[in-house]
Amino acid sequence: MLQQRSLRLLSALSHSSSRSIAAALGASLRCRSQRAYSIHADASVGTTIQDIDPSKLTITKTTTPKALLPPEELIFGRNFTDHMLSLEWTASEGWLPARITPYQNLSLDPATCVFHYAFECFEGMKAYKDKNGGIRLFRPDKNMARLNKSAARIALPTFDGDAMIDLIGRFVKLDERFIPQARGYSLYLRPTLIGTQRTLGVGPPASALLFVIASPVGPYYPTGFKAVSLEATDYAVRAWPGGVGDKKLGANYAPCIVPQMQAASRGFHQNLWLFGEEEYVTEVGTMNLFAAIRNKETGQPELLTAPLDGTILEGVTRDSVLCLARERLEPQGWKVLERKFTMKELADASDEGRMMEVFGAGTAAIVSPVRRISWKGRLVECGLPDHVECGPLTQQVKDWIEAIQYGDEKHPWSYTVPQ
Amino acid sequence: MLQQRSLRLLSALSHSSSRSIAAALGASLRCRSQRAYSIHADASVGTTIQDIDPSKLTITKTTTPKALLPPEELIFGRNFTDHMLSLEWTASEGWLPARITPYQNLSLDPATCVFHYAFECFEGMKAYKDKNGGIRLFRPDKNMARLNKSAARIALPTFDGDAMIDLIGRFVKLDERFIPQARGYSLYLRPTLIGTQRTLGVGPPASALLFVIASPVGPYYPTGFKAVSLEATDYAVRAWPGGVGDKKLGANYAPCIVPQMQAASRGFHQNLWLFGEEEYVTEVGTMNLFAAIRNKETGQPELLTAPLDGTILEGVTRDSVLCLARERLEPQGWKVLERKFTMKELADASDEGRMMEVFGAGTAAIVSPVRRISWKGRLVECGLPDHVECGPLTQQVKDWIEAIQYGDEKHPWSYTVPQ
Repeated sequence: MLQQRSLRLLSALSHSSSRSIAAALGASLRCRSQRAYSIHADASVGTTIQDIDPSKLTITKTTTPKALLPPEELIFGRNFTDHMLSLEWTASEGWLPARITPYQNLSLDPATCVFHYAFECFEGMKAYKDKNGGIRLFRPDKNMARLNKSAARIALPTFDGDAMIDLIGRFVKLDERFIPQARGYSLYLRPTLIGTQRTLGVGPPASALLFVIASPVGPYYPTGFKAVSLEATDYAVRAWPGGVGDKKLGANYAPCIVPQMQAASRGFHQNLWLFGEEEYVTEVGTMNLFAAIRNKETGQPELLTAPLDGTILEGVTRDSVLCLARERLEPQGWKVLERKFTMKELADASDEGRMMEVFGAGTAAIVSPVRRISWKGRLVECGLPDHVECGPLTQQVKDWIEAIQYGDEKHPWSYTVPQ
Repeated sequence: MLQQRSLRLLSALSHSSSRSIAAALGASLRCRSQRAYSIHADASVGTTIQDIDPSKLTITKTTTPKALLPPEELIFGRNFTDHMLSLEWTASEGWLPARITPYQNLSLDPATCVFHYAFECFEGMKAYKDKNGGIRLFRPDKNMARLNKSAARIALPTFDGDAMIDLIGRFVKLDERFIPQARGYSLYLRPTLIGTQRTLGVGPPASALLFVIASPVGPYYPTGFKAVSLEATDYAVRAWPGGVGDKKLGANYAPCIVPQMQAASRGFHQNLWLFGEEEYVTEVGTMNLFAAIRNKETGQPELLTAPLDGTILEGVTRDSVLCLARERLEPQGWKVLERKFTMKELADASDEGRMMEVFGAGTAAIVSPVRRISWKGRLVECGLPDHVECGPLTQQVKDWIEAIQYGDEKHPWSYTVPQ
């Protein structure tokens, strides 16, 4: 991938370096073109742009280990482990040796491009303790693949995902004591890639930093499921065709807060993003959405989720739900469908007694049952009886995935960190 | 505005703090709700959320002043002055006293929300030396108003724009020696507002930092205008109705780099963003776009630019061009129009000999003449004869605006920094 990147830049260079064009290059591209030259020079003398090499990892352990918090005091993303994993990248050298260091502040020039142009993308994944004390990751290859796709879309460097999984395993192993043992607990991992070039020119960053921090977390629903109420947002749009809504970019998050706050101000837990005049159902807050309804004609139960058309985040949990449902529900007579569906379809299903369940799916909660959706001045009930917080399908999906995550079920999705 | 913000949060609170709902709030809102509580507590005991108070500014001067670069070595956004202006904000206290300090790195926890969710917005503005040695800003009120609009859209704090202009004036005055004296030179100012909350919960930041850095810059076209060639982008979309394309958010910039690089790889200086099946012309790279064409029926010269429909950045230069054109061109028989126009309209005007000029407009270049646009496999010529780099209208607009910026023409848009 690094080679492809270099070739792409070289190709860009071969056109843009011609004197007449270069002379007219605007200020916004000056930094970019200088960087392209430096890559060109490197390539021409045969130096190597390096990918991640886990064997070069250096570890500096903390001298002031933190006390562990009582499990009931854990709050998502608020407290972190003793260490962090960091890798610097430069356009001329590629990925420099990885370092595990004590958790520490980043010191960055105020002109660093991450502060100005949102050169940032991230992943959310978890490490789990299995019943034998082993450490497991859940489908880390999917997270690395998505981080690479996110990075490439905003001109940040890509990397060898397997090498990065190796490094993440070593980091998690070092901070193993922070992973709570109990079911529902885990160590949330946040790989983050930022552009670190110290100039205000708008162009591809010539330097970047990939870091991973880790936060011990408790169950999303500590006292059992609580079904949420959603507000369908009709005045703001999260993503659009040709945009970047399918990438896990920082850019997709800050603009979602105000609609979320407005939904909260009216008593709803999350907002539901619709798209277009048809009011297609896309995502809920920061999760993918699934609806289980009975087919109007056949009565067959169908599990629906929006297709990956470029406007939907390609959730790892979403993919896991789809795979398991195809494997385990279709033999029971279900139909599993990735297709566009509208808010009106959901409302009709609710009105006609065909609505079975609706749930969000994401790394934080695995699944999050939905009680009702506010839409066009009415409340669309989503199939849950009063005083029932979770439907049987939602519970089943959670149990299936958790069994794999915690290693109770042997499954290729579960990656065991080497001892 | 701060009061409105507090009220909005209070209103959110009055609904969301009810026990049944609060219990079900997901992890993603936990930080948010805790923050809302703290504001509520403050408000109830009558403490004040403070706006910016310039009288509380403290100044710590550098002990190692930088050497000035020769004017010809200045590169946009690469070198900065001795100092920076910083203001911290917290949800409980509001804006803390402003500080001018030596230019220095920011030290931020790796969990800080600006790195993960793109809580960042900025402005671009310039300080100019007039012929009497005075320092001038150009329409700084517009920049402050836009920064406030950007901030509000991503749940960052708003502020008193006049107070901020006062502080920026003092900062620029302190670093006055970095403003080159010659025409075309200026001190580029970059006010930047970032969220600084140190948690991974996706919610409104409970703390923020507004800082201003300054970079001396030379003329965008050091040896006179060079007309640029554009590539119309049909595979990626910059902005969407209901999105945030009209705000100056970091989120709008990183996703633009790859299309820009791809245009460059085919020999074009910038990409031109189109919208929709109609292929409406929206913006060019990081500038607004103007086209001067003769009306097909009447032959009347018309100056066109896309309307502010939520997908167009509300450029200060754009607004200045429109105001001056209405005031000075309409009496000469021009028509000045903010309306949607398509790539096909431009191509037809070019084919029929009605194309007069096309130019980009932005703070960096003021105006940037366009020679041709690549669109659907053809090149649309934009009215410039060979060997002519700038049309008369483009030159006129630049002269008008520069005369105001440098104080040659007395005009309310020119703000003189107090001595």
